[in-house]
Amino acid sequence: MENNKKYIELDFAKLDMERTKRRGYSEAVFCECKTNEQLLKIFQTFKDNKTNVLGTRANIEQYNYLKEKLPDIKYSEKGRILTLTLQETEKIGEVAVCTGGTGDIPVAEEAALTAEFFGSNVKRYYDIGVSGIHRLFDKIDDINKANVIIAVAGMEGALASIIAGMATSHVIAVPTSIGYGASFKGLSALLTMLNSCAEGISVVNIDNGFNAGYSANQINRQIAGKK
Amino acid sequence: MENNKKYIELDFAKLDMERTKRRGYSEAVFCECKTNEQLLKIFQTFKDNKTNVLGTRANIEQYNYLKEKLPDIKYSEKGRILTLTLQETEKIGEVAVCTGGTGDIPVAEEAALTAEFFGSNVKRYYDIGVSGIHRLFDKIDDINKANVIIAVAGMEGALASIIAGMATSHVIAVPTSIGYGASFKGLSALLTMLNSCAEGISVVNIDNGFNAGYSANQINRQIAGKK
Amino acid sequence: MENNKKYIELDFAKLDMERTKRRGYSEAVFCECKTNEQLLKIFQTFKDNKTNVLGTRANIEQYNYLKEKLPDIKYSEKGRILTLTLQETEKIGEVAVCTGGTGDIPVAEEAALTAEFFGSNVKRYYDIGVSGIHRLFDKIDDINKANVIIAVAGMEGALASIIAGMATSHVIAVPTSIGYGASFKGLSALLTMLNSCAEGISVVNIDNGFNAGYSANQINRQIAGKK
Amino acid sequence: MENNKKYIELDFAKLDMERTKRRGYSEAVFCECKTNEQLLKIFQTFKDNKTNVLGTRANIEQYNYLKEKLPDIKYSEKGRILTLTLQETEKIGEVAVCTGGTGDIPVAEEAALTAEFFGSNVKRYYDIGVSGIHRLFDKIDDINKANVIIAVAGMEGALASIIAGMATSHVIAVPTSIGYGASFKGLSALLTMLNSCAEGISVVNIDNGFNAGYSANQINRQIAGKK
Amino acid sequence: MENNKKYIELDFAKLDMERTKRRGYSEAVFCECKTNEQLLKIFQTFKDNKTNVLGTRANIEQYNYLKEKLPDIKYSEKGRILTLTLQETEKIGEVAVCTGGTGDIPVAEEAALTAEFFGSNVKRYYDIGVSGIHRLFDKIDDINKANVIIAVAGMEGALASIIAGMATSHVIAVPTSIGYGASFKGLSALLTMLNSCAEGISVVNIDNGFNAGYSANQINRQIAGKK
Amino acid sequence: MENNKKYIELDFAKLDMERTKRRGYSEAVFCECKTNEQLLKIFQTFKDNKTNVLGTRANIEQYNYLKEKLPDIKYSEKGRILTLTLQETEKIGEVAVCTGGTGDIPVAEEAALTAEFFGSNVKRYYDIGVSGIHRLFDKIDDINKANVIIAVAGMEGALASIIAGMATSHVIAVPTSIGYGASFKGLSALLTMLNSCAEGISVVNIDNGFNAGYSANQINRQIAGKK
Amino acid sequence: MENNKKYIELDFAKLDMERTKRRGYSEAVFCECKTNEQLLKIFQTFKDNKTNVLGTRANIEQYNYLKEKLPDIKYSEKGRILTLTLQETEKIGEVAVCTGGTGDIPVAEEAALTAEFFGSNVKRYYDIGVSGIHRLFDKIDDINKANVIIAVAGMEGALASIIAGMATSHVIAVPTSIGYGASFKGLSALLTMLNSCAEGISVVNIDNGFNAGYSANQINRQIAGKK
Amino acid sequence: MENNKKYIELDFAKLDMERTKRRGYSEAVFCECKTNEQLLKIFQTFKDNKTNVLGTRANIEQYNYLKEKLPDIKYSEKGRILTLTLQETEKIGEVAVCTGGTGDIPVAEEAALTAEFFGSNVKRYYDIGVSGIHRLFDKIDDINKANVIIAVAGMEGALASIIAGMATSHVIAVPTSIGYGASFKGLSALLTMLNSCAEGISVVNIDNGFNAGYSANQINRQIAGKK
Repeated sequence: MENNKKYIELDFAKLDMERTKRRGYSEAVFCECKTNEQLLKIFQTFKDNKTNVLGTRANIEQYNYLKEKLPDIKYSEKGRILTLTLQETEKIGEVAVCTGGTGDIPVAEEAALTAEFFGSNVKRYYDIGVSGIHRLFDKIDDINKANVIIAVAGMEGALASIIAGMATSHVIAVPTSIGYGASFKGLSALLTMLNSCAEGISVVNIDNGFNAGYSANQINRQIAGKK
Repeated sequence: MENNKKYIELDFAKLDMERTKRRGYSEAVFCECKTNEQLLKIFQTFKDNKTNVLGTRANIEQYNYLKEKLPDIKYSEKGRILTLTLQETEKIGEVAVCTGGTGDIPVAEEAALTAEFFGSNVKRYYDIGVSGIHRLFDKIDDINKANVIIAVAGMEGALASIIAGMATSHVIAVPTSIGYGASFKGLSALLTMLNSCAEGISVVNIDNGFNAGYSANQINRQIAGKK
Repeated sequence: MENNKKYIELDFAKLDMERTKRRGYSEAVFCECKTNEQLLKIFQTFKDNKTNVLGTRANIEQYNYLKEKLPDIKYSEKGRILTLTLQETEKIGEVAVCTGGTGDIPVAEEAALTAEFFGSNVKRYYDIGVSGIHRLFDKIDDINKANVIIAVAGMEGALASIIAGMATSHVIAVPTSIGYGASFKGLSALLTMLNSCAEGISVVNIDNGFNAGYSANQINRQIAGKK
Repeated sequence: MENNKKYIELDFAKLDMERTKRRGYSEAVFCECKTNEQLLKIFQTFKDNKTNVLGTRANIEQYNYLKEKLPDIKYSEKGRILTLTLQETEKIGEVAVCTGGTGDIPVAEEAALTAEFFGSNVKRYYDIGVSGIHRLFDKIDDINKANVIIAVAGMEGALASIIAGMATSHVIAVPTSIGYGASFKGLSALLTMLNSCAEGISVVNIDNGFNAGYSANQINRQIAGKK
Repeated sequence: MENNKKYIELDFAKLDMERTKRRGYSEAVFCECKTNEQLLKIFQTFKDNKTNVLGTRANIEQYNYLKEKLPDIKYSEKGRILTLTLQETEKIGEVAVCTGGTGDIPVAEEAALTAEFFGSNVKRYYDIGVSGIHRLFDKIDDINKANVIIAVAGMEGALASIIAGMATSHVIAVPTSIGYGASFKGLSALLTMLNSCAEGISVVNIDNGFNAGYSANQINRQIAGKK
Repeated sequence: MENNKKYIELDFAKLDMERTKRRGYSEAVFCECKTNEQLLKIFQTFKDNKTNVLGTRANIEQYNYLKEKLPDIKYSEKGRILTLTLQETEKIGEVAVCTGGTGDIPVAEEAALTAEFFGSNVKRYYDIGVSGIHRLFDKIDDINKANVIIAVAGMEGALASIIAGMATSHVIAVPTSIGYGASFKGLSALLTMLNSCAEGISVVNIDNGFNAGYSANQINRQIAGKK
Repeated sequence: MENNKKYIELDFAKLDMERTKRRGYSEAVFCECKTNEQLLKIFQTFKDNKTNVLGTRANIEQYNYLKEKLPDIKYSEKGRILTLTLQETEKIGEVAVCTGGTGDIPVAEEAALTAEFFGSNVKRYYDIGVSGIHRLFDKIDDINKANVIIAVAGMEGALASIIAGMATSHVIAVPTSIGYGASFKGLSALLTMLNSCAEGISVVNIDNGFNAGYSANQINRQIAGKK
Repeated sequence: MENNKKYIELDFAKLDMERTKRRGYSEAVFCECKTNEQLLKIFQTFKDNKTNVLGTRANIEQYNYLKEKLPDIKYSEKGRILTLTLQETEKIGEVAVCTGGTGDIPVAEEAALTAEFFGSNVKRYYDIGVSGIHRLFDKIDDINKANVIIAVAGMEGALASIIAGMATSHVIAVPTSIGYGASFKGLSALLTMLNSCAEGISVVNIDNGFNAGYSANQINRQIAGKK
């Protein structure tokens, strides 16, 4: 296991050590289907290589196990995010994260914490969905100050379209699995967002706050001038 | 073929002559998969029995064939509606018919003409979709004067939710097959409308302007008749 | 946190205080994905603002937690409905709530309790599905006295079509997720209801008794003359 | 090409000459994706072997081509059925064929002609769908005289459930692709029929009148005593 | 609660007391979504009215509760079937029940027990699926002695086609939810069976052994009784 | 019809005259379901108001009709794009447009022409799909110079993931309906792109080159304008 | 345009000139969405580089256009295959191509011609589907002599399972879009084949005879070359 | 229960004793829906008949129960595989098993252990997915030494296409259910793999490592010459 390789081989994983060089940002780890032991090896390896690392879809048990050995690891239960920060990234620019309802907040937090981790200032606008649209109108001027807007919504997912119809910056839409019946676990919101009649909107996978936060940060930092 | 039966048997159809008595309104005929000869027999029979009749999804060829024998039949190409009116129904109350875009107008006309045929005043508000939402806000006070609101939209179908979030009257949502790709011929708009986070909204089949117009008239006349 | 604002901002929600003025009826809260603490803050805020509030899809644990602090809150386990009534609404008109089977009763109760909460008299007709259609025929004259009819059914969902074919009032159809195999959690009943060959029928989301009850009450009260 | 083999090999097909011995009834040919030349060879071979043969989903051009060479071939345009009868089968028992609407008649005729070809008496009950349910009730006692009932319906497909709820004989349900929007080319009717809450009903493929007619005849003849 | 009514009204159900007269066989109860108390009332009422009754999809807890009060109730855990038999029905004719694999046995038992309860002799042929097709060929002559054949299979569901291609009697196919991945909980087997290129086969809902058993018995008794 | 309104009302459409002010770019017109007469009125109105306008999914007949009256209108048959440019927008920054195969070029051209119309320099990289991945590697350094990358691909749609795994800039993925069988008209490529295991990628509707081009331009100009 | 590059750049395509070196076989061209001019340039370029090339899904018009300029091009209308053979490949080993019915022959021919083009002997076994399973049993010993077996079937697609249950060599299953109704354009056959309870079977895309033929040849030649 | 039969009948299963003779390899048992008692009888019977047997999708409880009675049974928890080896099979040739990520390893192990059990040497290449494609390029020359390549991947499943585009040997692709949202439990990866634009690739059911391992071994051993 050498330090100066492009990636480091564990028996169950190959850790990308050139991600920052190649793509601009360090690697993230999908924790959901990994064992405690696998996660510890992964985080320890990144720490040994002095590389920041983010873990997504982590549960509290995983965090409790890891913090014993890696006391500087941090966890947000709301966003199910683990972070191990060895060197701080300066936060620049601005990303707005909006949700349709209260139930969408965990996915929104995953997006917000990811964007912050990789170097963006984030403003949160929660529960501004279309059933009480005046709540959205009160905030739209503030939202429009951001370089990128993330719109997180389940059920019918109309929030993203409404915001895009009034925004100058690009909107990244995140459908969530909140809802029941014919929401089909986020399919309804996904289709709504893909078929938006407003332009300037693109979509990520259902509940994928991480990719939304990563993409928003990537665009925001290019705009803010630190590319 | 007797006049005083509950229905009249043709060899390919049984015409309901008690529809008005039983349900309040006369029968309607789905023209799409019927031959010219079948349609002529059906309309002639209703005429002989002095019963108004509405034909939906009729094409111009069917109309041209029928008007030779039944010169008092009327046709709207935009709404693909045939009407044979033997005794006028007084129009009362008010139904609002709204569309998201220009492409939704044929379905909206089917709804509007149906509601008018069965006895409602109708106001049309076309192309007020969410990509330019100020167009909708300019009209919402007028729309709110109606006893029932029909919202017709394809693509992402968010129009119905937005109107319902601001309306006091019930909204009947009609998804249309306008769109492409992941609109899946109206499925996207249908799911959006079913999952609306605004309450006071119900949905009919994709492109089913007829049922929306029938239902809106049915409700409107009950309301208008009691005032 | 001021009383005379359009909405009140909690850190996780924005409570709509103008819903009654704007739409005629006060707000309802979707309890399923909220914590006990969130629900308490929401109900307490509405109480402080002397506004009635309805909670849907609440479980018994949520109720037990809330009634400690809000002893006047009421709960129906059958309909999973929480109600906090600060000023009674007079019940007028009549809504009929029908089910195909015994398994559909929880959704029907959600609809019935919602319609009652917002001001409608409700009559219940349970287990009158099409496998024993004489049970329905015995009741149809009574059902037809209502201003609006709610038809709740799972499996093949034919109940709504049959009632609509014999009814003068509008039918709001609620597909339920009762069934197995190719019922696909309510999809079968949903499609049946959308494709009804009887007109005068509209559909809400699978298991969405709340929206059916809200919509039926909205229409019933307009007809009954208290708009 | 020998006569006394179990099947006869053409270069594009292997014709089953033992079908009657093995299964009780001679082979049927699916014409839709065959060329005129292929069909001629197939029908000629059966004729040469003195075996009755039925062709399904045949169009008028195919018939016109074949009757030149095989003048005793018969065609029903309504049911798209070709028949070449070399020895008559006595018709026994009774099969009832019912449709929900006029548009379902082609599929019903395919079923009826198939059952007649293979040896059943058939009675037709067309356009007795649930939007005017009294038409069905007038006929139910007659329908119940049949040994097997075929129920053909598109759109919501509720006809089969209603009949099964009142029938003593088995109901074979045939969903049709009649309808639009969320009928999804027969999927809605198919799901309705599969989820029927009435028992004593089984389902064949969308628009598959042939299999329904074959199956009904197979059961009817066993009951009528000629197994 | 009177004995000589067409049905008996409980507050949550209406029990059909004319089912035998109208349809030939007594009612069956879907136990899955009913409480112990509801089931007890239902079974007690049928007992009081001296009517046999069958319960489907019952679990062992429901049985344990019921047998306290109704000691003559019987339960098959394998088929999840409750039976309360007040007057025996003579078993006549023969129904064959076949499965593709061992995992399909619970659904097959539901079918077999239902057919026996309503009056058929049943022979079982289990684990004769197409991966070892010689097992099927050894049994086909015996299977062919039955008046009706039930074919139960999950995964690719080819068993029903193979049997139908060799059978003289009608085949009722039951897709099961056994399998994983692209079996989509029985959808794969359902589609296979609906699209069978062998004729003389009809299909019931996924896992619906009850309807298969009911239908097979209905047909078998007509054949055996020569009604 | 006044010039200084927020939008101009035609009888079938409401033309947004503040789009540039509100969102930064002028309106675009979806030509597919509009008549020649409707399109002429729309383009004429924009011309009268000295506003650039883009038409998408236009066919050659529509162009031929329009150029008679509006000789300065331009058309790209490959991209099905109409443009009416009254004041040129300076092109800045750089957008890369890549395709997997030759069949994806029409959608790619729609994206490229849209980005150019609204003010971006565009570089095209066509037929660099994953079946011959060395073609992509030869180009990746050039592609990486762009501020935004559009990846257009049908069939399995893997192109977007591969590029995103090697890119520093954001990738907008456009699934196309190219393919057959289980590509389900673009669904396969859409799902692939949504589930990309590379981050920094977002997705638009199937075949929606317009929205991809609009979004890429929107982001590119923000980046280029700040450098 | 140089000859010694890894690929040759046309303006609309990049032709892979190292395919044979890298993968063992030369490139194939998907003709369906290419213009005559594009195809001519592609085939001419391969000819100029003395490289064999295969075209799939070509229609007769494309062939007629190409043969004017490239008289040595060959076409099979049945398999929609164009071949330009500049140096013959010796045919070795054996591949068996089987179909369920006559309608599956075009896809089977695409597979057979592809395998022959790339160097395999092919034996054809057509119309041996499961509705007359003795036809298959007569041939199974011959089929088993092949190194690889291709099973092509639409509708319920059971052929592949049956063959795999009796074969020693690997079976490549090709679902076809032959069928109607719930065959959903090949989806039914695809799912059947994926869920086969026989092992030793793998599946390609619906109607993808080309990939089946390519894969069978690839495996067959490895086997034949080592014997 | 005799030893020299083609299969042995238990009351719930018929064990295939000629599988090796007929197909070349002994039977495998799908453990997921079998009871401990059923599994014991099955494994004991194979042992008594001196036949190797493999169990798939077995859990640790099943293993613990069986090893009491059959101490020579072996279990891999990672691959959920039980093996009872009575006579060793010499391992020949080479199969490569690759995964996109760490979460795909259980399915890959099922494939690898199956191929080893039936007689192949296996090399494992794990976590070489497309988000860090240089990891794959480092290994491709080694992978290409195998006679057959198994590519296991969830989420977007692009790994199989990438490998096939660079491989000379056949690729068997295994989609896994790893992922969330629009991965729809493996559907996304399945469609990607079926639509691969690289040829020389075939696909097995979602998560079906067993069939992939069996098929790879079957092909590998034919190539390696010990068929």
